[in-house]
Amino acid sequence: MKFGGTSMAGIERIRSVAARVKREAAAGNQVAVVVSAMAGETDRLVGFCREASPLYDPREYDVVVAAGEQITSGLLAIALQAIGVPARSWLGWQLPIHTDEAFAKARIGTIDTQALDASLSAGEVAVIPGFQGVTADGRITTLGRGGSDTSAVAMAAAMKADRCDIYTDVDGVYTTDPRIVPRARKLAKVTYEEMLELASVGAKVLQTRSVGLAMKEKVRVQVLSSFTGDDAPMADTLPGTMIVGEEEIEDVERQLITGIAHDKNEAKITLTSVPDKPGSVASIFEPLAAANINVDMIIQNIAHRSPSTTGASSSATDVTFTVPAADLPRSIEALNQARETIGFGELIHDMRVAKISVVGVGMRSHAGVASSMFTTLGARGINIQAISTSEIKVSVLIHEDETELAVRVLHTAYGLDADEAA
Amino acid sequence: MKFGGTSMAGIERIRSVAARVKREAAAGNQVAVVVSAMAGETDRLVGFCREASPLYDPREYDVVVAAGEQITSGLLAIALQAIGVPARSWLGWQLPIHTDEAFAKARIGTIDTQALDASLSAGEVAVIPGFQGVTADGRITTLGRGGSDTSAVAMAAAMKADRCDIYTDVDGVYTTDPRIVPRARKLAKVTYEEMLELASVGAKVLQTRSVGLAMKEKVRVQVLSSFTGDDAPMADTLPGTMIVGEEEIEDVERQLITGIAHDKNEAKITLTSVPDKPGSVASIFEPLAAANINVDMIIQNIAHRSPSTTGASSSATDVTFTVPAADLPRSIEALNQARETIGFGELIHDMRVAKISVVGVGMRSHAGVASSMFTTLGARGINIQAISTSEIKVSVLIHEDETELAVRVLHTAYGLDADEAA
Repeated sequence: MKFGGTSMAGIERIRSVAARVKREAAAGNQVAVVVSAMAGETDRLVGFCREASPLYDPREYDVVVAAGEQITSGLLAIALQAIGVPARSWLGWQLPIHTDEAFAKARIGTIDTQALDASLSAGEVAVIPGFQGVTADGRITTLGRGGSDTSAVAMAAAMKADRCDIYTDVDGVYTTDPRIVPRARKLAKVTYEEMLELASVGAKVLQTRSVGLAMKEKVRVQVLSSFTGDDAPMADTLPGTMIVGEEEIEDVERQLITGIAHDKNEAKITLTSVPDKPGSVASIFEPLAAANINVDMIIQNIAHRSPSTTGASSSATDVTFTVPAADLPRSIEALNQARETIGFGELIHDMRVAKISVVGVGMRSHAGVASSMFTTLGARGINIQAISTSEIKVSVLIHEDETELAVRVLHTAYGLDADEAA
Repeated sequence: MKFGGTSMAGIERIRSVAARVKREAAAGNQVAVVVSAMAGETDRLVGFCREASPLYDPREYDVVVAAGEQITSGLLAIALQAIGVPARSWLGWQLPIHTDEAFAKARIGTIDTQALDASLSAGEVAVIPGFQGVTADGRITTLGRGGSDTSAVAMAAAMKADRCDIYTDVDGVYTTDPRIVPRARKLAKVTYEEMLELASVGAKVLQTRSVGLAMKEKVRVQVLSSFTGDDAPMADTLPGTMIVGEEEIEDVERQLITGIAHDKNEAKITLTSVPDKPGSVASIFEPLAAANINVDMIIQNIAHRSPSTTGASSSATDVTFTVPAADLPRSIEALNQARETIGFGELIHDMRVAKISVVGVGMRSHAGVASSMFTTLGARGINIQAISTSEIKVSVLIHEDETELAVRVLHTAYGLDADEAA
């Protein structure tokens, strides 16, 4: 069981988490609980580090911020004992949870579960701080923001747990954002691959890294609401969303499209009059890669001949691509520095774009998803500025103002609206 | 160097601590710094534990509250690095600082300093969280409230440090409370024994346990103000108070009386008409000892014969003693339960008392300190309710309202006023 910062924000909520853990343990389950810091606490501690020095040593930063989860681990153990559940906390260095030495963004290696297994077998609930581990030479590490989901999945894998229940602010994964489409349906099951595509394009339920790890380790992850009352059904019958391997989804359950995601955190850059010769496109993306900026969608317009000033005719093209909106200033700087090498005319950028994606493992065996998407959007007059596809996803870039309209018409077109599916 | 919670309360103050540490390191000293949690933080964490369960597991309590010093350790290391001082934090379990398993009030055993020595020799400043350690089986312990002073002295002993500088809210140990006697003098040196008597009777500068440890381990402890500006002289020339062995105090420096302490946290209990027979006094103090209540001063009035109701004459006496004021309700309960056994008449209690003590190793070789104390107080009409003495201390119990008058007249009588001593 993993509980986030909102569930740990204050003793009253911790007590409510303890009650929920007690019900699982009372049902005869061996339970390990991974906890986040109290909501706001990590920000407070990170703020202290930044104030002490903007260029803080990540090793000492980890010592400071790991304290947040240490505190909630001890408190949940106390709250469990108070209602008669034997429990103890196991800090990252006590198990230990081994990580590499990438302080502040460490990766979990192996986890020793021998002592933990003995404790669980003896009927104790284990409370484990998320987000933290320890290096080979005994220094505290943290996994980076949102790392508690990854801790939970890694613990579940190491313990060969039957299930990893992640309690969040939402009660599952939906076919799309219910704030945009009130008729969005909660998905009973979704594959790891679909979840990765849905997460990376905007359905912020689980940290992407944790889903990747769950896929690799074949951990069955369940997303549940932490705000259901104490009289809610047990987690194994709760209507959350199970994230599983494709083989666990029956044919009859399978839909062509699983969900529609949207993402407004992209920015579009167009370079005009790029010389249409070998290597010129590479010269655009090399400086961006060097600056560690992820380019997502790329579209190259048809080359057009233009009369050269020297009288000879030369060929040029416009190149359009997207980068994370937060990286736009650095992208512009990197491209302008490489202007001589690339030889482009103008740099035009646009933050007012949105990426809309239809996701579903079902599209692997069905052609025509992309074309029906373009047709549906075209019928509503929505202009497509760029396209990218993967095996289980088709994404288009459109004007930001048309996001909600696009999501709604696609949700209906693919038969995802609640009453139709029922 | 040890800094308390007020010195660590916020990044600005931590920066100021870092500057002071830098000056010591820059002077060629190897420096280890022991830090408290930010002022108020330990109370916050203790409050969480109590709210989670009044009967919290001390093992989990220790996990929670040890986080406070962990945070300030990392922050001071960052602040030191920011001003060019190589530094790293060493948590209790990293050194490790071994303790027994008395969670929440653990005692330090051995401290491994091998890694620490190597770090100091390499020119790093070591930052060590006070108040914490680790058991043999790797669980976090804390030393109890105020334990950071003890941590600092224990570290100094383990490292064979030349000096243990304790920075506090006051700038040294005074002949008496300067709020009562403005002409109180700061003592340049005081012996461990005197400091123990002064501390235990009210001069709350250092935790008593840390002074006892310093005496046992022969650690030279200096009490200094943490609020002196950055341009203050170096600690080895700062006018704080050195706490040292008696052999370090020259004959010419020696005073008959070192200081006058007062303590209003005592309560007086009188039991009337206690049968004057063997064992009856023991029957009073046994139930108090069983309830873990420390009895301090005891006075037994002269026995008086009274006619018995049976016609035979029997002998009875009044017994008066003091207990900590906080333990008064429990004391009354314990005594009333033992009333049959003791056979006393009335139980009279009085919180409005104060204990005044004159302290000084010099009185070992000078008779007459007690009698001059009684004479001085008697001349001012101050009634003495009880007396206790040790080798280097004479204490009297008086009415609370006369505390300030008594301290002032004794301070003058023993020649401690600043202008007289100068």
